[in-house]
Parts: sequence; structure tokens; C-alpha cells
Amino acid sequence: DDPPGYTRLPEADPTALLDFAAARVDDLDDVILLGIGGSGLGARMLRYALVDPAESRPGYPRLHVVDNVDPRRLYYLLTTLDAVATLALVVTKSGSTAETMAGYAVVRGWLEATLGVEEARRRLVAVTDPEKGDLRAIADADGLDTFAVPPEVGGRFSVLSPVGLLPAALMGLDVTELLTGAALMRRAALRPAWRSNPALALALALHQHHQDGRRNVAVMPYADGLVDFAAWFAQLWAESLGKRSDYGPTPQAVLGATDQHSQLQLYTQGPRDRVVWLLETAEHDVEVAVPEREYGYASLDYLAGRGLGELLAAERRGTTLALIKAGTPSLLTTLPKLEERELGALIFLCEAAVSFSGRLAELNPYDQPGVEDGKRATYALLGRPGHTERREADAALESRFDDDLVSRA
Amino acid sequence: DDPPGYTRLPEADPTALLDFAAARVDDLDDVILLGIGGSGLGARMLRYALVDPAESRPGYPRLHVVDNVDPRRLYYLLTTLDAVATLALVVTKSGSTAETMAGYAVVRGWLEATLGVEEARRRLVAVTDPEKGDLRAIADADGLDTFAVPPEVGGRFSVLSPVGLLPAALMGLDVTELLTGAALMRRAALRPAWRSNPALALALALHQHHQDGRRNVAVMPYADGLVDFAAWFAQLWAESLGKRSDYGPTPQAVLGATDQHSQLQLYTQGPRDRVVWLLETAEHDVEVAVPEREYGYASLDYLAGRGLGELLAAERRGTTLALIKAGTPSLLTTLPKLEERELGALIFLCEAAVSFSGRLAELNPYDQPGVEDGKRATYALLGRPGHTERREADAALESRFDDDLVSRA
Repeated sequence: DDPPGYTRLPEADPTALLDFAAARVDDLDDVILLGIGGSGLGARMLRYALVDPAESRPGYPRLHVVDNVDPRRLYYLLTTLDAVATLALVVTKSGSTAETMAGYAVVRGWLEATLGVEEARRRLVAVTDPEKGDLRAIADADGLDTFAVPPEVGGRFSVLSPVGLLPAALMGLDVTELLTGAALMRRAALRPAWRSNPALALALALHQHHQDGRRNVAVMPYADGLVDFAAWFAQLWAESLGKRSDYGPTPQAVLGATDQHSQLQLYTQGPRDRVVWLLETAEHDVEVAVPEREYGYASLDYLAGRGLGELLAAERRGTTLALIKAGTPSLLTTLPKLEERELGALIFLCEAAVSFSGRLAELNPYDQPGVEDGKRATYALLGRPGHTERREADAALESRFDDDLVSRA
Repeated sequence: DDPPGYTRLPEADPTALLDFAAARVDDLDDVILLGIGGSGLGARMLRYALVDPAESRPGYPRLHVVDNVDPRRLYYLLTTLDAVATLALVVTKSGSTAETMAGYAVVRGWLEATLGVEEARRRLVAVTDPEKGDLRAIADADGLDTFAVPPEVGGRFSVLSPVGLLPAALMGLDVTELLTGAALMRRAALRPAWRSNPALALALALHQHHQDGRRNVAVMPYADGLVDFAAWFAQLWAESLGKRSDYGPTPQAVLGATDQHSQLQLYTQGPRDRVVWLLETAEHDVEVAVPEREYGYASLDYLAGRGLGELLAAERRGTTLALIKAGTPSLLTTLPKLEERELGALIFLCEAAVSFSGRLAELNPYDQPGVEDGKRATYALLGRPGHTERREADAALESRFDDDLVSRA
């Protein structure tokens, strides 16, 4: 087999997108990214890990990832942002995703109403297939700036393409370091022995747990910055591996220490159907210490002088021990720290692991046939040409379903 | 049996906390809430549903829920907020939760360093047991403002006590409407026939699915504002019902339409081990429309003139149809709109449903014995008196576990 397309991303030359970002950031307060699923999750992961909780890096614009069509978020942005200092990235590989194209039309209308047709064009960037699709055609016809999503790279594997790297560059992240981290992990992922190949080790461990009936995979970083990494992993894992009735891990994105107070009860005393992947960082870029003094209260004195990062690390270890005692298996990944290189490596680790997992489960991890039925039904409901004939069939299905519900009762 | 404590919350008199909030909000830009698990999730749910995506309601302070000990968030807040316009709520029922007490000591140190010891006291509010615990003792000794968590109400059931209502009042939410919605649902939850009792119907449906092998419960609101409702539900469900190896639903908090592009593949073609609870709002408080024009592109013309809310509703229905075709059962709850009364009713619906579910599964939904082991291990690792004797035992456990891993390989 050819190696999958995403494996070539670490060696792609980011110069064009770096130059574009460098030329534009000085005039920008805000960047709106319109993209859903794999077109939005990667940028969210990067932002959450490397920019939040601050709004932006000093001297760089804020990034707003609009990855849903709930009107309230876009309404809020378009009534508070300054169009003249805003850039909109429209990210859809196919060039026709309903949510993204709707957002594009709305934002373009707003830019045109505020700045005029010509200036609006300068504030729209298309990230899409290099040749095919409506968004590519629009961009070509209207002279929009464009960046290509390599056709051989699927949405959930595209964060290290312009899909993730263009917003990364605009946020002021070190794109070269992201790619370097990914390239280092790629080298490790090619090693034949699983003990020295972390991606193969992760895939083997999770596959074995799945075969042993532990189909739930809780991804539990002990690091606020990895919240959206967990969401990104959940897509990668579910959409790549959830394809057969006899196979399919269910990912659950949780956060340590917070969700010890939410999910640990279930993980320790509930059904034996779970493995927990714990992640942590060995170092924090900032530390905050509990003031050193005699408090005179048992619940404070043992904390005096401790760092919150130290407390977080102890909680992670406490959770590992509680899981061991309960007989719930867990894995642990420790990142040296949470910066671009480490995150690039973590991204590639998961992508390579899902490739190995697909091989182990004997399925194709790169397609997503099950997403199509919902899309077709939505198109039919909205009267998109070529889909309306489904309406009656769907209506019949719905009413049969209602009858079922009543007869079950 | 006595009715569980949370069922009395809708009739509690909120006057004291409303008066407190009214007297203080004019001087506040920011409120920091220190609280983890049930002490933070409720406020987060209210904020996300009724204030976000804006930073705050006009004339009211921003709420920052610090529900983890990752140092980066508190570091950011304490280096950017103005202490003189900040109030800190310390929320822990027991009065000794490690994460919350650590945050309290840090924030108090910051307030004292900036404003002096006396003024710092005026900016700290304790929400805790009316009599017991270290935080109560500290508040009494130092003359801090306090609000009581009723002893008979557990953390994950406490959002309609001062735990959630005090931050709600400070954010400018209509607390009376929240309670009215809850009271209306309480009345419905007392009806004996399941067809007219939505809480009993929800419990029966989810219990039956669980008994049929569908242990995964995906909670999938089609409303950005309900993202943290899903997280709150996940705690309520997992911690209340995950107590036996032969029983225990795994909640998965997901978002429509976004996660159609992440989880729907698994839900339609993966294992038959899941039920999906869809939620939507019939109305949006704002609507944003795709400009009405001839685009000349198939992926845009069918969207012309449509509202994003209309598109979201069509996607919800498309997902329902796709799930029906795939044989994956789903439930649907439609809120008239997303305001205080509706959210109060939704909260009580879930609480009453988990009470019924506990009865159906013949377990006690109000305790959480499984959370304790991790806490004790953390205390031991940090050398809290009375816990150090565990260290050696834990170290032995860890090294055995490492050996296991190697021998499995």
C-alpha cells in the first residue's frame, strides 16, 4: 500500500502560508474560521493548547472558530467585530459543506455590506481542494486568496495541512516547530518494534483492550490546554474506527482533575468496559503556589507552599492508583511540556495510531460512509435539487417510528 | 422514603442572595468562582446557556469558573483582572476539597497583597455547609459573607441552591424564573402515569435501552448554549448511576450539528450499544439568514434566504432520520426556547429522571463512594496527615502494575 496522505504533511513547505500570515496580521484584530468537523477541530485544538486562556498572542489577532450553524455565535461576532480588521477563512475540503457554505455566504454578505464588494474579496480566504468543488470555483472566479487541502488527506487528518497551519500562523504559533514535532514522531512510528514505536504501542494496547470488551476509551488529559485535543482525538477515533457492528471504540473526552469529580465514580465502580488514557505535562510554563504560612486548618496546611501544578500531578497519580485498585486499565502519556513541537508529535502519534488500529481491526480508517445519510436527509428537507424525492420516504419513516414508540410503551 | 433534598430547592427563598448580588454588582467587573465538579458545572451550564457567547450581560460582571488546578488559568486571571473590581466565590460543600481550598488560598493571597487583609475579606464569599467544615470555620472566624449549601443536597444536585443561584444572580440571570421552571417540572415529575411525566418517561426509556445492551448515552443538543448542559448531565448520570459492574451507562456529551462530523459515523455504523438523546430549541433568540440572491452554485442556491437556525433544525431532523435508518434509537426533547424558565425545567427533569433511574436500577443515586480512593491517594502523595501510611502500599501497587504491562507484551 501507499503510505496514507497525511504522512507526507510534515515535509510540506509552509513558506506560502507563513508569508501570507506575516503580510496580513498587522492589520487584523480578528480571524473568523468557518469550518466544521475536521476543518475546525484542528484549529480549535491548536488555539486551546497554545493561546488560551488569553484571547490572543501579543501582536496577533484573535481566532474565532465558527464550527456550528447555531445563529447566536455568528450573530454575536458580526455585531461586535470590526469588519475592517477581520479576515475570514472558509475551510471545506469538498467546497460544498452546508454549514460552512452558509456561514461563508453570511460573512461575505456582512463584509460586502460594510466594506464593499472589492474590499470584501481581500478579506476572504478559501482553504479547499486545489481543483474541485464550488468553493474553488468561486475563489477562482472572484480572485480570492486560496490554500489547497491535499486531495489525498481526509478532513480529520488535515490539521498539519493549511487547514490547521494557516490559522496557526495567523495566531502567531511556530508552524515549523509543529511540523518538526510531527516529523520526529513519524520517524518513531516507522520503527518495527512496538516497544520503541509509541504509535504502534498505543494502537496495540487500545486494540487489545477493545478485544477484551473494553470498548470505551476515556481520553483524560491533566492539562487544561488539552481539552480540545481530547475533542479532536474523539473525532479521529470515532470516525476512523466506528464502521462495523462488531467493532468500534467509543471515545469519551474528559479532563483531569476536574472530571475526577464527574466520571471517576463510573470508571472505578461501574462496568468493566473501559480503558482510560491519561495524559499530562511534566512541566508547566507557569506555576502558581499556595502561599506558605501556618493556616491552622487541616485542609490547608498540607497545601502550604505547594504549586497548583504539583497538586495537579499528584491528582493524576492518585487517579492512576485508584484505577489500578479498581481493576480499570489505564495508559499514561507524559509530554515534556505543552509547546508546538510536543503538540505536533502528539498529533502525529494519534494519526499513526489510528492507521495501525485500522490495520489491526481490518477496516479502512480513512473513509466515513456513515456520515452521508444524515447529510442527504438534511438536503432533502431543505429542498436541495436532486434530493427532494427522499422527502416522502423520510416522512413515512418518521411516522412509522412514532408508531413504534407508542406501541413499545 | 423522604423525597431527596434537591426536590425542595425550587421553593427556597432566594431573597438573601438576590439582595447580596444587587448590592455588589455595580462595583464588579469580574467574579471568580472556585469550585470543582458539582460546585462548578452548574454555574458553567447557566453561563454558557444564558450569557455566552458575550462576555457578560450588560451591567453585570463576567463570571470565570475555575474548576481545575491547572496553574495557567488562575495565573492568567490573577495577572489580568483588577482585584478592586473582583469578587471570589469559594464553593465546596465539605469545606475541604483540595482543588478548591488551594485556589481559595491563592486568590486570598492575591487579594490581600493587592488590597490588604481587611478589604480582601469583603471580596471573598464562602458557599459551604451551614455548620461543618474548614471553610465554614474560616468564614466564621474571619467574618466572610456566606451562603449555605443544604446538607441534604449533594454536589451534582445543587445547581438550584446558592451553588448555582448566587453566580446566576451575579451574572444578571432571572433566578426566580429558573426556580419557576424547576417547580413546574417538579409538578410534572410527580404524575403517576409515565405518558404525562417526562422525567419518568426519560428514565424508563434510558433504563430499557440500558437493559437491552445500549449502555452508551450520547447527549446531543442542537444548540451551542447547551454544551455545558451536556457536561453537567454527564456528571449527573455517571456519578449517580455508575456503581455496579453490571450496571452503568456511559454518558457522552456531544454537540449538533458540529459532532455529526465527528461521531455520527460511529453512531450509525458502529456497534449497537448506544442511544442518542437529541435536544433542540423550537425558537432562537436571534436568527441570521443566508443572503437571498442567485449564487449560481448548487451548494449555495438551496441555502439562499434560509436562516442558520432553520438549517440547524433541518440537520437535527436529518440526523434523526439517519439514526432511524441505521437502527440506532434516539429520543428528542424540544425546548420552546432557551431562557431561564426552560433551563430550570430541563435541570429538574434530569435530576428527577436520575432519581427514577436509581430506583429502576435498584441503587442509591445520591452517593459517590468510588471518588474517594483517588482522593485518598492524592492526599497520601502530598503528605496530608493521616494519609502518609498509604505511600508504601501505593508504590508497591505501581511497580506491580508496571511489571504487568511488561509481562503482557
